[in-house]
Amino acid sequence: MLEEKNMQTLDLKSPYLEKRNKLVIVCSKGSLDMAYPPLMLATTGAAMGMEVDLYFTFWGINMVRKKSVDSMKVSPVGNPAMSMPNILGMIPGMTRLATRMMNKKMEGMKMPSIKEMIKTAHEAGVHFHACSPSMTMMNLTKEDLIPEVDDIIGATTYLDLASDNAITLFV
Amino acid sequence: MLEEKNMQTLDLKSPYLEKRNKLVIVCSKGSLDMAYPPLMLATTGAAMGMEVDLYFTFWGINMVRKKSVDSMKVSPVGNPAMSMPNILGMIPGMTRLATRMMNKKMEGMKMPSIKEMIKTAHEAGVHFHACSPSMTMMNLTKEDLIPEVDDIIGATTYLDLASDNAITLFV
Amino acid sequence: MLEEKNMQTLDLKSPYLEKRNKLVIVCSKGSLDMAYPPLMLATTGAAMGMEVDLYFTFWGINMVRKKSVDSMKVSPVGNPAMSMPNILGMIPGMTRLATRMMNKKMEGMKMPSIKEMIKTAHEAGVHFHACSPSMTMMNLTKEDLIPEVDDIIGATTYLDLASDNAITLFV
Repeated sequence: MLEEKNMQTLDLKSPYLEKRNKLVIVCSKGSLDMAYPPLMLATTGAAMGMEVDLYFTFWGINMVRKKSVDSMKVSPVGNPAMSMPNILGMIPGMTRLATRMMNKKMEGMKMPSIKEMIKTAHEAGVHFHACSPSMTMMNLTKEDLIPEVDDIIGATTYLDLASDNAITLFV
Repeated sequence: MLEEKNMQTLDLKSPYLEKRNKLVIVCSKGSLDMAYPPLMLATTGAAMGMEVDLYFTFWGINMVRKKSVDSMKVSPVGNPAMSMPNILGMIPGMTRLATRMMNKKMEGMKMPSIKEMIKTAHEAGVHFHACSPSMTMMNLTKEDLIPEVDDIIGATTYLDLASDNAITLFV
Repeated sequence: MLEEKNMQTLDLKSPYLEKRNKLVIVCSKGSLDMAYPPLMLATTGAAMGMEVDLYFTFWGINMVRKKSVDSMKVSPVGNPAMSMPNILGMIPGMTRLATRMMNKKMEGMKMPSIKEMIKTAHEAGVHFHACSPSMTMMNLTKEDLIPEVDDIIGATTYLDLASDNAITLFV
């Protein structure tokens, strides 16, 4: 029996057969289109039983800022995938139009808004962390952030979370 | 001998000496410049014997869309690294010019086109997955995608692939 | 006692309790705002005793290029988080203005410049790798790069570094 145990142990030489169960995403963008992917992955991960942490830094702070969470925008310029000539994208009102189009699309798919996704993710146990130096840079305090934000942390705490064998992504 | 085995086992306390052999990349951008990095890493990884999965989501769908795979563009605006004043980038035709310049560069380096890289990657065993909600958002069906796409999957399947101790990147 | 060792071994079934101690970041952007996050994470990681590797590719080469390291810019267009209408961002001089504003912010926070952060990171043991095909594409040689760059490597070497159970990010 001892031998058997040892055999089992030796198999562990490939411990990677075991699945990772943690997801840590850096959210660094402040546009509507790049707000969806991390939130979709976060809620899916939480639903799968994963521990999920989101770290909002730089422009990503806008995703958890009271003032901007409900008015995130898509830029019609600088993104060739939108197939809109830059000269048109410059016209005042085009950012609003592109944003309204994406919001309509999302509604049509019965996709919740960013604010609703954040609420759902939070209820599912996703942790929301705001980056401390980014807060300073933007002159923000905790009062400027939505209540779903659990804490304000620095890069050390983020790296500690990431080093815990998490799936790591920088969005 | 049992003792020896145990010693060996104890060394496994640092199982991370073993190399990971899997690469899972999210491709979320629809521009020519951000299409190259994931494809170059994918073909290199496959050549090294890694299992490689590409997950095309949001604007990244354009990389595997019949209509756009051959006409991906570089934006001359919104990217200070291009050192072109935004006001110039606005002029109709500048996106085409910037794109032609990059394509020429790539040809000069005997770098294959995006379409050719996809074909090579696919032949090397790289798996191509299109994101299901992104397809819905863009009103696309499997027929709109290039034949190299293996399947249309959701975030759950992507996370399952990533959790398999893969090197994970979000491009 | 042997039994005990075995028990210990069996606990290792969850080897992921052990923290990862390596950080490998791809730097692919050439703008000032996206130069800060990888450098901040790199210096923090090094201070925590992690082994840190930065891989500069595509536009990210600008972060380690003599000619551009001191003049990285923020784009006022194509980034809705900046809440500046694109039409204003087009006006010649606005990129300079947005860049000066961010540099002032950083100075106000006593945040070092990109060049200073690179020096600090290098002294802390962070490894700087420039991507070989990107160098070719931009017609650059080692002489065009700042002295902190350790070597010019390809995707194979990058993947080898990343496969060593590193926290991986693509910025």
